[in-house]
Amino acid sequence: MRPLELNKVFTLMESGPVVLVTTHDGQQDNIMTISWTMVVDFTPVFAITTGAWNYSFAALRKSRECVIAIPTVDMLDTVVGIGTCSGSDTDKFEKFKLTRAQGRIVKSPLIRECLANIECKVVDIVKKHNIVVMEAVAASIDPARKEKRVVHAVGDGTFIVDGRKIDRRKMMASKLPPGV
Amino acid sequence: MRPLELNKVFTLMESGPVVLVTTHDGQQDNIMTISWTMVVDFTPVFAITTGAWNYSFAALRKSRECVIAIPTVDMLDTVVGIGTCSGSDTDKFEKFKLTRAQGRIVKSPLIRECLANIECKVVDIVKKHNIVVMEAVAASIDPARKEKRVVHAVGDGTFIVDGRKIDRRKMMASKLPPGV
Repeated sequence: MRPLELNKVFTLMESGPVVLVTTHDGQQDNIMTISWTMVVDFTPVFAITTGAWNYSFAALRKSRECVIAIPTVDMLDTVVGIGTCSGSDTDKFEKFKLTRAQGRIVKSPLIRECLANIECKVVDIVKKHNIVVMEAVAASIDPARKEKRVVHAVGDGTFIVDGRKIDRRKMMASKLPPGV
Repeated sequence: MRPLELNKVFTLMESGPVVLVTTHDGQQDNIMTISWTMVVDFTPVFAITTGAWNYSFAALRKSRECVIAIPTVDMLDTVVGIGTCSGSDTDKFEKFKLTRAQGRIVKSPLIRECLANIECKVVDIVKKHNIVVMEAVAASIDPARKEKRVVHAVGDGTFIVDGRKIDRRKMMASKLPPGV
């Protein structure tokens, strides 16, 4: 994995991939699967919807940090598996044979098997709507990885894999942030 | 277009498609292209990131309603075109030859060419983060449409088209909301 420039990190999230979010509560690591995410700012700032129904939420609220890891299509069964068991009785790193790596800034673990890992600090928790706003403070990407297609949840138990890429950079030039 | 049950509407948004958001300010209709969206609740409730930098924001704030229209890949150049001009000097329905249809509840127009249209009422504007929270109050879908693949923005001027679909309904059964 190599460091990724922060001004490019929003491009990992904008297309709406299913992501894995790791936390560390001071004693244990945990992972949750999240599909309800949004870019809020290019810098980047992200929002995710979560609350007490996710066991990870207590750790997220307490530590005010997490890692957003981007899995790819070859990891789909791991992603679904993580989303259908609970950290309250399962060590998900062990169960799903995932490898921890240490972040540069936050204590939540990176997931080495993922395409990219985004270290985040919580900026605000909008309790009324269960929205957690966080800023990325460091990120890394695995350039050696061959499989780069992410997966998008439909919400009914089906998933859509990235298909064809279409380039509209010229048409969009006036709207793109610098250096992306 | 036929009505779509509200409990299924979140499945139009969860995968993270680029969407068109229409507004009506009392005099004029407008359309903006938005990629920064998130599901917040199955009922459904959505969040979008927008603010004064979008000309449509004033109408959205004033009328407290909008339509989220879901375009497909055949409409990509329209979607990018809408996102790179402003309602302050352009009638986008006319410029992009789009057909208005009347909603059942809100005054913002539906876009007949789109796969689906979701009528929304604003629930809250979280000014601090430029997040607008809205609930869907009605929705319609065009079942006769052959092209159903939506497009996901990467954020760097490239777009990803829906690819292969993978079914994990059985694995996910315990986590799916009823009737979806």
